[in-house]
Amino acid sequence: MSTVAVLGGGSWGTAFANVVADAGVAEVRLWARRPDVVDAIESRHENPDYFPGVLLNPALRATADAAEALDGADFVVLAVPSQTLRANLGAWRAHIPRGAVVVSLMKGIELGTSLRMSQVVSEVLALPAEQVAVLSGPNLAQEIAERQPATAVVACPHEESAVRLQHICKSAYFRPYTSTDLVGAELGGAVKNVIALGVGVAVGMGFGDNAKASLITRGLAETVRLAVALGADEHTLAGLAGMGDLVATCSSPLSRNRTFGERLGSGLTLDEVIAETRQTAEGVKSSESILALADSVGVDMPITEAVVGMMHHDLTPAEALMAFMSRSAKPERYGV
Amino acid sequence: MSTVAVLGGGSWGTAFANVVADAGVAEVRLWARRPDVVDAIESRHENPDYFPGVLLNPALRATADAAEALDGADFVVLAVPSQTLRANLGAWRAHIPRGAVVVSLMKGIELGTSLRMSQVVSEVLALPAEQVAVLSGPNLAQEIAERQPATAVVACPHEESAVRLQHICKSAYFRPYTSTDLVGAELGGAVKNVIALGVGVAVGMGFGDNAKASLITRGLAETVRLAVALGADEHTLAGLAGMGDLVATCSSPLSRNRTFGERLGSGLTLDEVIAETRQTAEGVKSSESILALADSVGVDMPITEAVVGMMHHDLTPAEALMAFMSRSAKPERYGV
Repeated sequence: MSTVAVLGGGSWGTAFANVVADAGVAEVRLWARRPDVVDAIESRHENPDYFPGVLLNPALRATADAAEALDGADFVVLAVPSQTLRANLGAWRAHIPRGAVVVSLMKGIELGTSLRMSQVVSEVLALPAEQVAVLSGPNLAQEIAERQPATAVVACPHEESAVRLQHICKSAYFRPYTSTDLVGAELGGAVKNVIALGVGVAVGMGFGDNAKASLITRGLAETVRLAVALGADEHTLAGLAGMGDLVATCSSPLSRNRTFGERLGSGLTLDEVIAETRQTAEGVKSSESILALADSVGVDMPITEAVVGMMHHDLTPAEALMAFMSRSAKPERYGV
Repeated sequence: MSTVAVLGGGSWGTAFANVVADAGVAEVRLWARRPDVVDAIESRHENPDYFPGVLLNPALRATADAAEALDGADFVVLAVPSQTLRANLGAWRAHIPRGAVVVSLMKGIELGTSLRMSQVVSEVLALPAEQVAVLSGPNLAQEIAERQPATAVVACPHEESAVRLQHICKSAYFRPYTSTDLVGAELGGAVKNVIALGVGVAVGMGFGDNAKASLITRGLAETVRLAVALGADEHTLAGLAGMGDLVATCSSPLSRNRTFGERLGSGLTLDEVIAETRQTAEGVKSSESILALADSVGVDMPITEAVVGMMHHDLTPAEALMAFMSRSAKPERYGV
């Protein structure tokens, strides 16, 4: 039986660890920073912070000791806030078993370096390509904790690792597809947080479903332009880790990024929104790294640019909208 | 000044005629079958059946006489129920000015022939390619009548005609992009009605946003497989007339096809749903033509197949779901 260590007891780490436990073909241990979370999972099979009332699989074990979680792990699944990954990996490095496949569930881009999470993993742990994978897709954690049906993409340049990963998390309600396009899967997840901020702003301003769908579509178009410039296959972005994740996030009132944007669009100031937001909205920080990445390869990303303007440079939603709608009339495809 | 005849005083015909009037660069005449609708538009600038309380542009004229609407028209815009197009065109044929560009707003596939609407136009009117165009996109009529922002694609194999059409309907709230891929734009609109039925069923059964986004994404994937087999450019389907229209339709409680599916998924029988549905849900009829088209080119369309089963062969939503979820685990891309 394989052993899986999931590092990070937040919403997605907990929900995914529970998926693996439900899949039933691997032993799974969840590392959480806070002892009270560990206690609740061990004693009551519940993570009351994120999923009060949801019974987690009793086979899921939790620990506050990362070395214990990592001991003998065949898969190491990372689910911590993106900007803390490098520091965390430094602390865990000595305990990660040689040969383990390291899987990122994270959807951020590192500030300063503009590196994707899997690149941070490769750099810090010096792993070969077949040991670094990502899982992404339309995966609102709350729904998955409630065992509602969902799909995902498991991506690794070496297909065999992707198939092994698919095997340990395929269950009656969770349907993972394999892909070898790690870059595309990872960028789809990262950029969608930024687009979701923009869509949230539009929703907050009172726009309807036509405008929302237009923004989502043009948002994916700029994601494709960036991803292709960085070596991804554009079909990955048309799939579950691109379009699927983007549509789920932009549709759901559960999405932190969409909600953050919505508050801003409804007239609160940026400071007010930040003050009342408890969890991380990954897109706020990642938007700057993504725009830097786009600039470095000469790709036009007007929606990301507007989001950066609103999140970091005092652009108002009304100004951002006006700049966007007054762009010149174009053929639908350009810049690819 | 160009003259535009819009034939069909239903929701989309009325809303689009109003877009052209608002754009302000062409004279526009709307033909409606019912004299009371014509009267209301002429006297009160309102179509009370579809948009009660919305003030239409006073420059929009209406008539119940198709010959009068068509007299001297440079553009003839068709917005009647898909299955009535051939008969209507037969009646209008003698009055359509030589040289006019004929534009389809319709999103059906003809029963029996499996022809797209633009193919019916070309066949009945014997027009050259530069005189046949389509307009499609995320265009919920109610929102457009309310002058909320939206985008669309105007497609014609001859770019000059698309650009001319773009010019007459570009306004402050309506942003049309040009394309030369008529086949892709038209198929995107037709298949999305079928996928929206399927998504509606899932919503009616209580599924969440992950499942909905997965169905939308896999639904677009099968649309792409069909469209490419029929000569379309797959990028059109990734754009506003494919993904954009699909996302808007599947998100909106205003969509007839989604609502039809939702009622079925919530436990009503097919007969009960049909009995309480006033307007046409295009996807119910078109689903069979689309599946026939897919069979003719050997393309796998599992969601469309499930919809045809539910709409025409007594398959229950629960049986359709089970068939779908028990398909074998696959790489994400296959059959392209």
